[in-house]
Amino acid sequence: MAKYVFGVDVGGTTVKMGLFTVEGELLDKWEIKTRTEDGGKNVLPDIADSIKEVIESKKLAKEDVEGVGIGVPGPVKEDGTVLKCVNLGWGILNVEDELEKLIGYPVKAGNDANVAALGEMWQGGGKGHSNLVMVTLGTGVGGGIILNGKMLFGVNGAGGEIGHICVDDSETETCGCGNKGCLEQYTSATGVVRLAGRAMAASDKKSTLRELEAVTAKDVFDAAKAGDELALEIVDTQARILGRALAQIACVVDPEIFVIGGGVSKAGSILTDSVKKYFEHYAFHACRQTKFALAQLGNDAGIYGSACSILGR
Amino acid sequence: MAKYVFGVDVGGTTVKMGLFTVEGELLDKWEIKTRTEDGGKNVLPDIADSIKEVIESKKLAKEDVEGVGIGVPGPVKEDGTVLKCVNLGWGILNVEDELEKLIGYPVKAGNDANVAALGEMWQGGGKGHSNLVMVTLGTGVGGGIILNGKMLFGVNGAGGEIGHICVDDSETETCGCGNKGCLEQYTSATGVVRLAGRAMAASDKKSTLRELEAVTAKDVFDAAKAGDELALEIVDTQARILGRALAQIACVVDPEIFVIGGGVSKAGSILTDSVKKYFEHYAFHACRQTKFALAQLGNDAGIYGSACSILGR
Repeated sequence: MAKYVFGVDVGGTTVKMGLFTVEGELLDKWEIKTRTEDGGKNVLPDIADSIKEVIESKKLAKEDVEGVGIGVPGPVKEDGTVLKCVNLGWGILNVEDELEKLIGYPVKAGNDANVAALGEMWQGGGKGHSNLVMVTLGTGVGGGIILNGKMLFGVNGAGGEIGHICVDDSETETCGCGNKGCLEQYTSATGVVRLAGRAMAASDKKSTLRELEAVTAKDVFDAAKAGDELALEIVDTQARILGRALAQIACVVDPEIFVIGGGVSKAGSILTDSVKKYFEHYAFHACRQTKFALAQLGNDAGIYGSACSILGR
Repeated sequence: MAKYVFGVDVGGTTVKMGLFTVEGELLDKWEIKTRTEDGGKNVLPDIADSIKEVIESKKLAKEDVEGVGIGVPGPVKEDGTVLKCVNLGWGILNVEDELEKLIGYPVKAGNDANVAALGEMWQGGGKGHSNLVMVTLGTGVGGGIILNGKMLFGVNGAGGEIGHICVDDSETETCGCGNKGCLEQYTSATGVVRLAGRAMAASDKKSTLRELEAVTAKDVFDAAKAGDELALEIVDTQARILGRALAQIACVVDPEIFVIGGGVSKAGSILTDSVKKYFEHYAFHACRQTKFALAQLGNDAGIYGSACSILGR
């Protein structure tokens, strides 16, 4: 039986890579540059070369390596076809077939948000559960869904694209996706800043936020923790919108646990407690006890999850 | 290889049963009474007796029967545990274990709405697809989700409980589930009647609906087909609410097709066309081409689906 797996997380500027035991211990991690020029044609060969180097330098035997998992920033179908990765310059491409040819080991591909969810299930905030929904509150809102230990890909590679659930019909500003009123417009880091701007404009309530030149999501949560009333209102609004959306999602896939990650999740329990409160209000009774946890792997979730994906393929 | 499967659909008053070939041809169907007295303790023995009679009368050899699938009106976990069936008088019970003991064949259990979705996939409106969401617009709104040909059970047996997605925060009336603003309150047969009442009260627009003593959902769709303006507005409101909810669901599980069934779906293309229009408006771009179809099996969806479930277990 093989002892090692590689996890690869391809981003627009760097590729993160990790060598793991099949039990989930991270033995080594490193990064290489993502060369996106020429339609990103060097990305996979660079990854293959880097993995081969590690295999040689560590003198790993062929039969000791189970394979390579890879997460990419775009929609991926269950058969390994990437539909488009704008950030990498890729069009339609079967990443599994291409990388297998280059490297000679089995390859499993997934969307980066779905792969991160798998990582949090394996060794992070969702450990011990095999049905989870991960929500990543960063610049945007990403989502990943794991059912019975497997990623939910979706027919168009859009499984778990929960950031683009429409939550407000009356929104006038447009989301990056082209629609109006997406979850991402209220609950991402950028979304919290937008809510803050609206809240400050809508009232003349005193707030430490008004003293700042530019408000960040972190400022809002810090001010809320310090008891600033306006900031508490903004956090409450974000939590209501997110908690309601998660209750809608629970009516669809009914998971054991929600894992909240991304930059905004650094706010900690003030965020999860408020989201959980609204979730319980809006949830169908059978799902009301669904657990909440913070993500634990940070930027390593992608390498953990891609490594895990090759084990469960 | 076995040639036959039995499908059983347990309702509050009758149990529908069918004998199928493994290829999906319905050879015979019949019903027995659901004896709900004494905590429903006769329900499974009655089913076992009825199946045994058919096996004897048709002289089926033991090895010719693959097994029995059963759909029940309540939440079912993937291991066959029914959490509660109020209509049958059941508490927590492993239906698969119990019925297997009585009958000597493998048994697969599922929630009735999920099983109906599987039936529509096998031989109905979703034939040829293995990732679908079925929406049943009846007295309530039921939902069933099939991913890669398998039912999505959910950790609490609440997978696909889409009728209880909260779609309106400002609702003042309470849904049967205890929450306010559930999808079911607007898009079920009862929901359409409620919308009609509100629309008639909100305007003094002329309408043939005003001439009726009591308006039904069918009346609303019939009037809309005849060009009645107020009825068209009601249909449009229902379609907007349902289309938006289905777009939210597509962001979660990203299916190939939505299959619309239940009494309200008899309205036909006026319903699916309007729902599809709003779905496309609200959907994430990658999911915008998701197909729509009407259910085809009517009340037989349950026996088809339960029979199918034992094949794919």
